[in-house]
Amino acid sequence: MNKGPVDSARVPRFAGPATFARLPRLDEVGRADVAVVGVPFDSGVSYRPGARFGPAAVREASRLLRPYHPALDVSPFERVQVVDAGDIVANPYHIEEAIESVEAGAAALDARLVTIGGDHTIALPLLRDAARRHGPVALLHFDAHLDTWDTYFGAEYTHGTPFRRAVEEGLLDTEALSHVGIRGPLYGKKDLDEDRRLGFGIVTAADVLRRGVDEVVDALRQRIGDRPLYVSVDIDVLDPAHAPGTGTPEAGGLTSRELLEILRGLAGGNLIGADVVEVAPAYDHAEITSVAASHVAYDLVSLLALQEYK
Amino acid sequence: MNKGPVDSARVPRFAGPATFARLPRLDEVGRADVAVVGVPFDSGVSYRPGARFGPAAVREASRLLRPYHPALDVSPFERVQVVDAGDIVANPYHIEEAIESVEAGAAALDARLVTIGGDHTIALPLLRDAARRHGPVALLHFDAHLDTWDTYFGAEYTHGTPFRRAVEEGLLDTEALSHVGIRGPLYGKKDLDEDRRLGFGIVTAADVLRRGVDEVVDALRQRIGDRPLYVSVDIDVLDPAHAPGTGTPEAGGLTSRELLEILRGLAGGNLIGADVVEVAPAYDHAEITSVAASHVAYDLVSLLALQEYK
Amino acid sequence: MNKGPVDSARVPRFAGPATFARLPRLDEVGRADVAVVGVPFDSGVSYRPGARFGPAAVREASRLLRPYHPALDVSPFERVQVVDAGDIVANPYHIEEAIESVEAGAAALDARLVTIGGDHTIALPLLRDAARRHGPVALLHFDAHLDTWDTYFGAEYTHGTPFRRAVEEGLLDTEALSHVGIRGPLYGKKDLDEDRRLGFGIVTAADVLRRGVDEVVDALRQRIGDRPLYVSVDIDVLDPAHAPGTGTPEAGGLTSRELLEILRGLAGGNLIGADVVEVAPAYDHAEITSVAASHVAYDLVSLLALQEYK
Amino acid sequence: MNKGPVDSARVPRFAGPATFARLPRLDEVGRADVAVVGVPFDSGVSYRPGARFGPAAVREASRLLRPYHPALDVSPFERVQVVDAGDIVANPYHIEEAIESVEAGAAALDARLVTIGGDHTIALPLLRDAARRHGPVALLHFDAHLDTWDTYFGAEYTHGTPFRRAVEEGLLDTEALSHVGIRGPLYGKKDLDEDRRLGFGIVTAADVLRRGVDEVVDALRQRIGDRPLYVSVDIDVLDPAHAPGTGTPEAGGLTSRELLEILRGLAGGNLIGADVVEVAPAYDHAEITSVAASHVAYDLVSLLALQEYK
Amino acid sequence: MNKGPVDSARVPRFAGPATFARLPRLDEVGRADVAVVGVPFDSGVSYRPGARFGPAAVREASRLLRPYHPALDVSPFERVQVVDAGDIVANPYHIEEAIESVEAGAAALDARLVTIGGDHTIALPLLRDAARRHGPVALLHFDAHLDTWDTYFGAEYTHGTPFRRAVEEGLLDTEALSHVGIRGPLYGKKDLDEDRRLGFGIVTAADVLRRGVDEVVDALRQRIGDRPLYVSVDIDVLDPAHAPGTGTPEAGGLTSRELLEILRGLAGGNLIGADVVEVAPAYDHAEITSVAASHVAYDLVSLLALQEYK
Amino acid sequence: MNKGPVDSARVPRFAGPATFARLPRLDEVGRADVAVVGVPFDSGVSYRPGARFGPAAVREASRLLRPYHPALDVSPFERVQVVDAGDIVANPYHIEEAIESVEAGAAALDARLVTIGGDHTIALPLLRDAARRHGPVALLHFDAHLDTWDTYFGAEYTHGTPFRRAVEEGLLDTEALSHVGIRGPLYGKKDLDEDRRLGFGIVTAADVLRRGVDEVVDALRQRIGDRPLYVSVDIDVLDPAHAPGTGTPEAGGLTSRELLEILRGLAGGNLIGADVVEVAPAYDHAEITSVAASHVAYDLVSLLALQEYK
Repeated sequence: MNKGPVDSARVPRFAGPATFARLPRLDEVGRADVAVVGVPFDSGVSYRPGARFGPAAVREASRLLRPYHPALDVSPFERVQVVDAGDIVANPYHIEEAIESVEAGAAALDARLVTIGGDHTIALPLLRDAARRHGPVALLHFDAHLDTWDTYFGAEYTHGTPFRRAVEEGLLDTEALSHVGIRGPLYGKKDLDEDRRLGFGIVTAADVLRRGVDEVVDALRQRIGDRPLYVSVDIDVLDPAHAPGTGTPEAGGLTSRELLEILRGLAGGNLIGADVVEVAPAYDHAEITSVAASHVAYDLVSLLALQEYK
Repeated sequence: MNKGPVDSARVPRFAGPATFARLPRLDEVGRADVAVVGVPFDSGVSYRPGARFGPAAVREASRLLRPYHPALDVSPFERVQVVDAGDIVANPYHIEEAIESVEAGAAALDARLVTIGGDHTIALPLLRDAARRHGPVALLHFDAHLDTWDTYFGAEYTHGTPFRRAVEEGLLDTEALSHVGIRGPLYGKKDLDEDRRLGFGIVTAADVLRRGVDEVVDALRQRIGDRPLYVSVDIDVLDPAHAPGTGTPEAGGLTSRELLEILRGLAGGNLIGADVVEVAPAYDHAEITSVAASHVAYDLVSLLALQEYK
Repeated sequence: MNKGPVDSARVPRFAGPATFARLPRLDEVGRADVAVVGVPFDSGVSYRPGARFGPAAVREASRLLRPYHPALDVSPFERVQVVDAGDIVANPYHIEEAIESVEAGAAALDARLVTIGGDHTIALPLLRDAARRHGPVALLHFDAHLDTWDTYFGAEYTHGTPFRRAVEEGLLDTEALSHVGIRGPLYGKKDLDEDRRLGFGIVTAADVLRRGVDEVVDALRQRIGDRPLYVSVDIDVLDPAHAPGTGTPEAGGLTSRELLEILRGLAGGNLIGADVVEVAPAYDHAEITSVAASHVAYDLVSLLALQEYK
Repeated sequence: MNKGPVDSARVPRFAGPATFARLPRLDEVGRADVAVVGVPFDSGVSYRPGARFGPAAVREASRLLRPYHPALDVSPFERVQVVDAGDIVANPYHIEEAIESVEAGAAALDARLVTIGGDHTIALPLLRDAARRHGPVALLHFDAHLDTWDTYFGAEYTHGTPFRRAVEEGLLDTEALSHVGIRGPLYGKKDLDEDRRLGFGIVTAADVLRRGVDEVVDALRQRIGDRPLYVSVDIDVLDPAHAPGTGTPEAGGLTSRELLEILRGLAGGNLIGADVVEVAPAYDHAEITSVAASHVAYDLVSLLALQEYK
Repeated sequence: MNKGPVDSARVPRFAGPATFARLPRLDEVGRADVAVVGVPFDSGVSYRPGARFGPAAVREASRLLRPYHPALDVSPFERVQVVDAGDIVANPYHIEEAIESVEAGAAALDARLVTIGGDHTIALPLLRDAARRHGPVALLHFDAHLDTWDTYFGAEYTHGTPFRRAVEEGLLDTEALSHVGIRGPLYGKKDLDEDRRLGFGIVTAADVLRRGVDEVVDALRQRIGDRPLYVSVDIDVLDPAHAPGTGTPEAGGLTSRELLEILRGLAGGNLIGADVVEVAPAYDHAEITSVAASHVAYDLVSLLALQEYK
Repeated sequence: MNKGPVDSARVPRFAGPATFARLPRLDEVGRADVAVVGVPFDSGVSYRPGARFGPAAVREASRLLRPYHPALDVSPFERVQVVDAGDIVANPYHIEEAIESVEAGAAALDARLVTIGGDHTIALPLLRDAARRHGPVALLHFDAHLDTWDTYFGAEYTHGTPFRRAVEEGLLDTEALSHVGIRGPLYGKKDLDEDRRLGFGIVTAADVLRRGVDEVVDALRQRIGDRPLYVSVDIDVLDPAHAPGTGTPEAGGLTSRELLEILRGLAGGNLIGADVVEVAPAYDHAEITSVAASHVAYDLVSLLALQEYK
């Protein structure tokens, strides 16, 4: 029998520990099927910093989550053991060392992971861990930006480069790479060419408006098939109205409803891990962004729970 | 001839009294066809409090309203006498006493009411008043949440329970009960089962996206028919982007445009009263939430005015 | 060869001068095909003031813009010389004098203009300048409000009257006048009648939801044809969720995605000038509004660049 | 027997009408010894506008005030009839006309006035009214700025010029003019020379720190004597920490405690009228500024009540 | 050897668990000399609610605290075992039941307590617990308000009444009761008379300015002597500039420097317990209030540690 | 004749370029006696990042500055040529490289510098530049923190270590090193011991309260004598009420009035350079912090101008 969250009928949701969804800590239960883990690291950003406070903010906002997911018809915390595995510590002054810490921290957790960032730099070590466990994985990447740039100020590892590095390192199944929510100006047409060459397909934010979530889901699922799938959600895939608290906002984004509906469309697939990154609470208001991120994380946990593994 | 709002051509909208839409007070005109009344009470909330400041905030935001409604082609304040009836006082330290005060306060007003909350607890006494006047009424309930829970911390009367109580007390016509905008996790599948057993139909927030407002309106009108209709709008039916200033935000909600269009689709029906609740100004920004709520209240007043009763 | 913006690979976007999109100043390059110019003036507002700080805020938010526009497949700053022409100074204590200053300031710039307001009063002198250059122009006006009122507190020139004045002065081609995004209550049905008599067609915010951006674009383009076109964007055309930082917010507005997609639908037309007005930063949060406005301005610049005029 | 404010033991302070201190409206009681009146006008500002929303914000913040002033040992609302006289309407598009309206509006009120601005421009017509009633008056002016500039952009009447105009018009007793709280850079040494020539003495913000409030009070009282005294409080006399919500903030200001203690030191003098101006709520946070302004207004009302004039 | 906080040299302060000062949880160490405990309860407030989120906010803000207190020259977490004992759960819908829960929760903790509220209602059960352990205690009460009112809306137990109830219940040593920081209007002179009759002495906020902290400390220590002392700090004792995030702000308050210096002046006395209450984070900005409260709590913990009790 | 700022009588302060105090750019005048330069760099912070946006924010806030300093009786921009030298670019991903860039950037400017940070890491290269020009300099350091720690997460160069490094590198005259405003907990008593050993004297924030600014100034001047003096102002020396927008706030700090008065007390000394650092605008409100920082920078410029060097 799995240990679930604190009972809201006995402890009000505004009271008690600020673990994700008020779930038990990993050290309380000793094992986990799914672990939610934070990576408070933002030294890879190129504009507004602050995502180092993302894990704490998402945990606070997740107090409101309840244990049954009606759209997916699953009680994830009953079905599998879900825990809050705390934070992976990453050196704020040394990006490469931080990346190693994240990879090691992920490897040390014997569970499927939903990671809360932190900036998008951390997707690289998380994908290393995923590929180590599953071989090259399909990637579904929600973001306003491609994140397949090469270097920035001479740095190879930043929040704008994780997916180029991941392809270069052979972590990804290049038949099944998709960006969703792309929009906003680029440095040049070359950005698109190189991204395509790496294997990515693009569903722009405008495509989601024109085609609707169901058609988008169909296309994505076709591309992904039954490959092991990693989902990476940069919260700036949402419009700044829905996610003001982030580092590189771009107008014209998705609504949180669209994002959640697309995620729910993945049920039945082979999700093996996920992250939600780039929540920068200093720019948030009334937890708009961290509530959205906590719902995204909850949906990802629920999708993992649905798969009934082990 | 009905007394209308202060003339904006002589008194700028940022000046003068903060009655709803700058309308006359009830004591100025002595009678009303439609009365807007506040209930600054929030002791029934389960998470973020602060809706006690909702009536004042919605009144301030309503300064921007003008007297002609183009979408409904009506000048509500000309057609009928609309007034601001002030606030009904409710004991913040005693929920049951507060509920009685609201019921008595509503009963004392000889007009159709558009009530500004306050938290959703107040819907129960308002429905008691509506049922006393009209018999069991149809209910159209806009909300992220079902609000048909049973008890919470031993309390029967909270902002999560008004509609279960209302069904139990026979205030509602159980053939014509609808929730619109439902989303977010629940405590368990039982929540849905019990809600259905009480008679409610659900239009989720995702349904509104997929089906569009016109199809939703058709379905709702079919269910309602020409029954006397009470509309209860929890402002958290809107996405946190459109209503950050509320107590239990859930990602993935309606836009304010969708909500207003659905309300306008009710024209020609038999609306007999309404409320707009759960505006918590401490979490609002730039009046986003209270402007939306003031527009909702204005549309509800306009619908009441359209019916040309008396 | 045109001088482009500061290179983000050498100077981080958070560093360096706050010109629009980090473009060169007019005095640095001496000539311009397209000039972005600010008009920090807000003495014509009827409710919340503060748009005098709009140009500075939009420039700060435009730091995030990059030089290639993927949706329009153009690098506007390569294709034509785009500059930041600084601010036109306007007397805050004398509206008529300010209007003359804006007209003179615009006339002094030998380039197509994208003007950042400031309140909507400034559209009148900008249209005078446009008509002086091109004869009466087609107008595409994005706004929650008609802005064709007659007078307000005895004043003929305010942010609610520019387009009536423009028609009266013969600046507009009355066969091709459109409002997009209109919503919210009016003073009376007469407002609509007079607006229609002036020659305007209306696409409401609800129309955009029901008909979709592509159908709206088709209808607008049909009306405009190949006439010289001036586009005026009051940022309050966006929903308060997408543009809280503005003076007269109305619920139920467009999303920034819809606005940008409609603008992009104008590619291939004959745009001759444009403005983005009514950004009031004191009410903004996390630059939601000024980021949206900077993207709108960038799209307008890109459309002008696409036309390859000499 | 005077009619006092709404009883907080029966109507919670967050409920009921938003008159100043929840006092009766003038039209409810028909007469007044002291009237609190708003002037929502800010077209005279030189930097951040928004003080037009000052009266509404100060009234909302004044809900917290209670009826007994312990430091002055007076129950002002018992001792004299204090009312809220509503707002004086002033044309936002025409400064001179607005000044006339304020003078006429003040003259129409048969009571001693505590006026809530609005920007400092309004001090001129209020001083005209005071001088009409009492002859040239002593002035105690709390402000970061001198407000004795001559013209600005050709305008004689702005928020930077009222006291020069007042001296020129003979409204002030030039033997008894004091600024308190002055600080921050000026345009030139000439500003100080001209100010001195007009008759003003200066107590800088640093003087208050060095000399303490009691010594400052002694010096001020000596200068004022028993002359009829008008007190004008620009809320920017407070440090931005204590009054962020204002238009031209200057670091290094007074604390609210110092300001209130100096005001209380005037007890026993011959106060005949007062204003509190330059509260710009869009820049306020958690009502810090409007709470301070409401306490200042309450102290001024209490001082007027103490004098027991008939 | 006592277990101290997480080492900031290995885990950045923005990472890891949000216990107070990153201290171990009580269940980790099994015993405590001093326990910091939260009481997220605010149903006793009379104006702005929200202090239910106080404990979480103060814990987040306490991440910045370091383990050595230079002014008191003590490393409190080395000297004694300090823990975070989590939250005491209190029914938000039933004040009396909540008070019982707090009393029972405090009694269950075998340690000296520094309690983080929550509203001031909780001081009553905390004083019951203190008196049960120590007999009637001296009270040093920092607050803008007396909190010795009798009833409010018929309720005996609210945040305005704890100290009257405590005197009535014999929990306090009436020879040694002091309020510090009192200011702002009262309901009547009777409030002062009754407060004095209960045994309280008052140091107003203005007294602190005039007399300085050292003289105030001397007077307080003289009154307290070596009696067992309970310190209750309502954060609204601070000026709204220093503590905007609270429920009933009053202008003219203490600075955080004054408050901390007075507390430090208590070193060498016989402190037996303390609370810090009324932090309402929804009204806070940039953690101004919760940082101040966390420093106050840290000083109280340090004072307790200094006493070297068993 | 020196070129001064844009004339506010012709261009309103809210218009025109956002150089510091609206001064000319260095490239406009070609030479400078005093240069204000920005360093948008914050990769050395240990808690809240965001000071990379400090220079832009301080420049915007400096629009309010006027050209005459009454307390120092100097028109600094007339007396010497003051310019805005723009930003020194520093690699956000490589601290050591950034430090070299700052040193080189400073060396390239042939003027006395007032540098706007950025985080405190930049004080090290600025002191290297100062020592290169003047030999070891006296240091007056305003801060809540000592900033003489050794390493943090293995990093030698962070915002907590510049002054230890500077002593180690022989940049400072160890007879004349002072911290002012120190407060808050430390890691251990060793922090104080090591700081003392490096040569620093400490004036705590509480000392400033107890002794008053004049006595503090006397003591500091005695220590400094006529040595070449570098002043480094971490804006967190101010209380969070006066400077919420910073990275490591500590309660109990200085007021902005105290800080400015102490700085003014340095007139007549031998100031050779200065910085103002750690303004993190994302945490600021209504420019409280950046207005204070701009006044500090203005005072430092004025002190440099007073010395009439060259």
